[in-house]
This record gives sequence, structure tokens and C-alpha cells, in this order.
Amino acid sequence: MGAIQLSQSPDGAPIFSVTARTPTNIAVIKYWGKRDEALILPLNSSLSVTLDPNDLAATTTVAISPAFEEDKLWLNGKEVSISDSVRYQNCLRAVRERAQGIEAGGEKASQEQLRSWRIHVASRNNFPTAAGLASSAAGFACLVFSLAQLLGVTEERPGDLSAIARLGSGSACRSLYGGFVRWNMGQASDGHDSIAEQVAGEEHWPDLRVLVAVVNDRQKDTSSTAGMQQSVRTSPLLLHRAKAVVPERMVAMERAIAARDFQAFGALTMADSNQFHATCLDTSPPIFYMNDASRQVIGLVEQWNAQAGEIKAAYTFDAGPNAVLFCLEADRGALLRRLLYHFPPSDSTPLNEYVESAELLKEASVSSADDIRDLPAPEISKEAKPGLQFPGELKYIMSTRVGMGPQVCEKPLEPLLLDARTGFPPVS
Amino acid sequence: MGAIQLSQSPDGAPIFSVTARTPTNIAVIKYWGKRDEALILPLNSSLSVTLDPNDLAATTTVAISPAFEEDKLWLNGKEVSISDSVRYQNCLRAVRERAQGIEAGGEKASQEQLRSWRIHVASRNNFPTAAGLASSAAGFACLVFSLAQLLGVTEERPGDLSAIARLGSGSACRSLYGGFVRWNMGQASDGHDSIAEQVAGEEHWPDLRVLVAVVNDRQKDTSSTAGMQQSVRTSPLLLHRAKAVVPERMVAMERAIAARDFQAFGALTMADSNQFHATCLDTSPPIFYMNDASRQVIGLVEQWNAQAGEIKAAYTFDAGPNAVLFCLEADRGALLRRLLYHFPPSDSTPLNEYVESAELLKEASVSSADDIRDLPAPEISKEAKPGLQFPGELKYIMSTRVGMGPQVCEKPLEPLLLDARTGFPPVS
Repeated sequence: MGAIQLSQSPDGAPIFSVTARTPTNIAVIKYWGKRDEALILPLNSSLSVTLDPNDLAATTTVAISPAFEEDKLWLNGKEVSISDSVRYQNCLRAVRERAQGIEAGGEKASQEQLRSWRIHVASRNNFPTAAGLASSAAGFACLVFSLAQLLGVTEERPGDLSAIARLGSGSACRSLYGGFVRWNMGQASDGHDSIAEQVAGEEHWPDLRVLVAVVNDRQKDTSSTAGMQQSVRTSPLLLHRAKAVVPERMVAMERAIAARDFQAFGALTMADSNQFHATCLDTSPPIFYMNDASRQVIGLVEQWNAQAGEIKAAYTFDAGPNAVLFCLEADRGALLRRLLYHFPPSDSTPLNEYVESAELLKEASVSSADDIRDLPAPEISKEAKPGLQFPGELKYIMSTRVGMGPQVCEKPLEPLLLDARTGFPPVS
Repeated sequence: MGAIQLSQSPDGAPIFSVTARTPTNIAVIKYWGKRDEALILPLNSSLSVTLDPNDLAATTTVAISPAFEEDKLWLNGKEVSISDSVRYQNCLRAVRERAQGIEAGGEKASQEQLRSWRIHVASRNNFPTAAGLASSAAGFACLVFSLAQLLGVTEERPGDLSAIARLGSGSACRSLYGGFVRWNMGQASDGHDSIAEQVAGEEHWPDLRVLVAVVNDRQKDTSSTAGMQQSVRTSPLLLHRAKAVVPERMVAMERAIAARDFQAFGALTMADSNQFHATCLDTSPPIFYMNDASRQVIGLVEQWNAQAGEIKAAYTFDAGPNAVLFCLEADRGALLRRLLYHFPPSDSTPLNEYVESAELLKEASVSSADDIRDLPAPEISKEAKPGLQFPGELKYIMSTRVGMGPQVCEKPLEPLLLDARTGFPPVS
């Protein structure tokens, strides 16, 4: 069975569809600020780690048929107007323009047909959007990837598809590859060289691990699109960061990844997260994405690193209060113990919902709420002030790792995103 | 009665003393980072507003006598070792070197005598140190000012005394003048041109008002000395701020003050506070002085300014979570109403302790806890999210204004800092 599924609508029209799954990614050298709003061209290059799509991914079914009357989009089961979204239109148009042809199940569709038929898109995430983990990056990457498969679009130059995904959401371009991914800022005014490129594959650093501490936040954050516009307009530090700081950090980060040097990787990751949030604070009015719980996570990581005399864990924060924490496999249990000591679950949260991974709990030697209550205060250096405890300030802690890029789903989804017979979401 | 008091010790030795009061100050263009640690020479010039010493001041009695056996220092009634403090030694030495002579009450002391006799210093603040309001700036300025009076030291060049106070604490140099004060970073390697200078007197802007929102903080802050060392060592943004951003802001701020332009003054004050905290965040490990309560104060000010379409209030934060808020006299009641709406006192805090000034409460039309409970939600612009309420997150709100520089106290203090007969703090 190939990538493209063929079915027939009730009145006999062919419906071609493709389903694919695309990972999310977390930047370790941050993207903040555009030099071109329409083309989504960044002020600086950035670099991300692709997260395992088994834990965090968007799954999208795209379908095309002469039976469809208009382009339609459903996100997490809810219809969203494409005509209101320039970004969706730009992505659809760019892939459609490059359509070649379809041949599947004995049926064919010509280039001309593909350019005139309408498209249905349905997408969902396998993680709560509350996690604030670049769901739009995974979503746009998945739309572009699956649509390219459907319409037989091949890249003329490597990275062409990433440049299309970039039109949907800047960081989406990095979700088209697994492992470690660089987004080159590019120089061209049409943006054709502002593309993503894999720096190292998902097997490159097998013992790198990721924990995500999802924070209970009271307030809605500034959207990253609006936030970076404000920063570009008002922060005197942002351009200096983009021009004078990031280029060196990109080189150093690639070197750290190539050498699997966790010390350098961790130090750069933390410094760049902090600098990104510093430029947010330097914005008028200032933008705050981190809150006191975020600060406490930073504090516990910094205390651990200071006490150990080396970097045991490294934090990074995107445009929200949740912490993404890197560590090596051998230290993951110890990291979870420190997190659980400072952030025990609230009394009403069952442990297996707070930390879903049984394997991870085992590594931390924690199997009950009593075990958490009995955790000793973590060792800290003599000069350090003992950290405080904040029960209930985290929603949950999830565990993931470096993951692969987009994949076509060969097996039918359960539940289906689009009904094969209608090309619409199944009626529930 | 002159500035110098003469008394006699039990064994007949003369005790000469001077008591003076010196204001604290709040920087509106911030000082952060030294280019010389020993001489306390800053990376950039800064500018401050001197706060009314009737509300916030250090009061110091300095005494000199052949009867004293060693230099001694008492801060807020507690003896502090001078031999442990290079900064106190540097200030004492620098003033003593410049001693001329004393003539008071018919007694004389020669230059030689003054250089060999020991000195007693006792100082206290008229505000809780918990207010985190540059108590060391007022303290060192007061030591240098009162000692100069005692030893007959006059400035060879204007600002000489401020350069000595700078050796105690950088921002202390700005507390030697009232009104609006610039600290020129200077160029000389010996620091003689790194001095404070008055930009405008305390009568210059009569309707400028200051509220201080003192925050309940759970954690001890990083000391500013240690913090700025870390920033200089690790923040890639700090030097850019000092070299490329601050010089223009100094010019613009002086212009705003000269023109009593609250719009420009407020915008620059907020931007520079935020940029200072941004460089703290850009430090490795990052330094956080503001907490969630500080963010909420920023939020309510920004919301008010956005709704009004002009700057009604401006915030600035030093190395701690407390907000210093500027507004014009006509808006002070409205500012307090917004503060009280978002930050009502805890149930156990009497209103007249939460806001001491009856005049201020009257301006806000608030006279009881019920009045606070009944405050309507402040008007905000349509796009804004309504702000939340945080009972008990502030300790108290105090009111002050622009104030005068150091003054000799002609009348005896109640209670005395040093007993005239012994030269030691009175036994309580």
C-alpha cells in the first residue's frame, strides 16, 4: 500500500488522500524577530532539537477530490476558516503551484486537475495544546509535508519544502527534519535560501533525554507573532543579539552537537534561552513568558549544576512558562527527583497522571505520593540557599527524547481524521 | 550653634561630632556593571531622582576624639566591623587624608591631630531596610558628607566628595545632591572624573510624585555587587547597552527632565528599568530581581497607560522586587486606586499601615477596607485582558517625592546616635 489512499465519494468521484505525522521541535538557539513579516524571514539563524513524534506530534490527513467544493480545514476536530488565514492560504498555494500528478489505485489525476480541485485538511495533536509546545510548528510542517506527498511535489533544491512550511510558521520549517536542525536565516529577498537543514540525525546522540515541566499558568501569553513584532520595533538589544551574538553561538552549538558535548550544549542552550527572554523584557511594553514557577525550575537546575561542578541539566523556555529540560540518560532519574522534590503534585493529582512514564518513575525510585513526600532535600553547594517547595505549581512532567522527522502513516488512523467516503471529518 | 558639636569625655578629652541626614535616590537610567571593581568606576553614566529625606533617609553621627581607641561603626544600632569592610576603610581614609582642622566651642584640633585621632560612626535609616531602597547609597553618602563637615574638608573641585562616596557604594555618589542627579561615568583611570552632578534642583518639577510598592518576597536577592560582577563577566548584551544605548538615553533623559516632559521621562524610565533587568536575565546564571508581583505592577501600569493613550505612571525597579512609581500629582489618587484594586491589603493589615499617608488615601477617596473592596475594576482598553487581584502580595505602599540633598542636623536627635559624653551609642 502506497502513501496515497484512493476512495470514492458517494457519487463516484475519486478522493485521493495522504496521512502523515510530523514532530514538534524545541529551539536551543532561538528564533525571535523577522526581517520580513510576509515571507517570515528571520533576523537570525536558529537551531532546534526535533522531539520524538511518539510523544509530541501533529497528525494530518489531506485529501483532494473533484467532489470538494472549497478548501477546508479542521484543527483538533474544529473547523477553521482558511479564508481568514493568510498563512494557510500561502502554504496551500505554494504546494499546489508545484503539483505534479497523482497515480494511485489505478486512478490518475493530472497537474491541471490537481491545481483546480479543492483540498480538505484535518489535523490533530497527540498532546494537549496547553503544553505550549510549538503545536503550530508541527501543524504547518505536517500540512506541507502531507500535501507534497499527495500532489507529487518533489524538491528542486533540498529544503524547498521547508521554505514553504516557513510561510505558515517560521519554526515549522525545522519540523521537516528529525534530529538536530538548523534554520539558515538566508540572504535572498524572496526567502528561497531561508530553509531548514539537518545538522545531525535522530540517532546521533542516543543518550540525550528531554523532560518537559508543564506549568500551571494563570494568564494568557502574548502571541509569539505579536511579541516578536513588538521586540523588533522597540528592543534596542534585539538587533545586537541577532547580528553580534547568535552567529557565534550557531557555530559553537553545531560543534557541541557534533561532539556530543553536553557541557557546551547545555551552557549554550541555557544562555540562549535567557537571552531570548531578555530581549522580550527589553521590549516596550515588556513581554514576560516566564513566571515564578519557571524561575524556580531555573533555580533548581542552576543549583544542581553548581553543586555538581558541571552541567547535569539544561533548561530552555519558548514563548510560555513551560520548561524543556535536557539531560543525559544516566541523570534523568536524579533530575526527576529534584523536580518532584521542589514541585510535588497537588493532593488531587494522581502520580501516574503527573508523571505518565512508569519507566521514568522507576529511574527516580519513586512509586507513590509517599515516596515524593519522603524525598530528601537535594544536595546543594554550601553557599546556596535551600530551595523552596511549590506543591501544585506544575501541571505535569512529561518525558521525551530526540525524534525523527515527518512520516507517512501507512495504516489507517484510529479515529480517522477524514472519512474516506466523504472527505469530511467523521460524524461523532 | 554650628554644625560641629563639642562635648567632653569623662576624662576631659574633647569629642567633636557632626550629625547629618542624607537622602536615598532611585535611578531612572540605571547603573549596572563596573569597569573598575576597586575604584567602583561604572560602565556607563546614570541618572537618578533624589527622594525626599523626610520619607527615606540615612542619619549619621560622626565623632572624633583623642579619647577613642579605634575606628568604630554602628549601623541601625548594631556594631559592624570596619576592619572587615574595605569600602568603609576607603571612605574613612579618603576623607581623613583631606582633613583640615576643627574649631568649635573654643576648642581646636589641628590637621595632624585629626589624622591620628580615631573616629566613631553611627548611622540609622528612617525606613525599614526591607524596603530595599538603596539604603547603602544613603548610608555611604551620609558618612562622607558628615565626616567632611567634621574634618573641615572642602572640595577642591565640585564633586570631589561624591567621588569619595562612590568608593563606598557606586550609587552613593548620587545621594550627595538633591533633585535630579547625573553620575558621569568619567574617563580617568584614577576615577577623579567619575563624579555626581546635579542636573536640576528639588524644586524644579514640583508636581512629580513617587509611590513605592513594597513587595512581599519569599527569597533573598542576589547582592547587586555580586550580580553586576556576574553580568559583566557573562552577559553579551550588557556592554552593548552601556556603550550603544545608555549615552543616547542620558541625553534624552536630561532633556525630558529639563522640559518637565512626563511622557518622555516615563517612557525612558520604564524602558531603562526593563533593559537593566534584561541584562540581569542575560547573565549566566541568570539573575531575577522582579517576581510575579513586580510583573503585575508593570501590567497594571502598562494597562493604564494603554487605556489613557498617554503615560499616566512609570515604574522602575532596582535590584529587588519593589516598584518605584512616578506620576504627576493630579494622577496620584488614581494610581493608588489602581494599586489598591489589584493589590488589596491582606485581611490582617490595617489600612493606615498599608498606606500611611492620610492625604494620599484622601486623594484616592479611600478611607476603609470596605472602600477598597468596593473599588470598581479599573478601566482598560477593549483589547486588554482584565487584570487579576492579588490580596496580600504587597507589604505596603508608601508615598514620597523629589527631595533635597544632605543636610546637617542642627538640633539633637531623638534618640541620639552617639552619646555626647562617651562617643558611644547610648545604652538602652
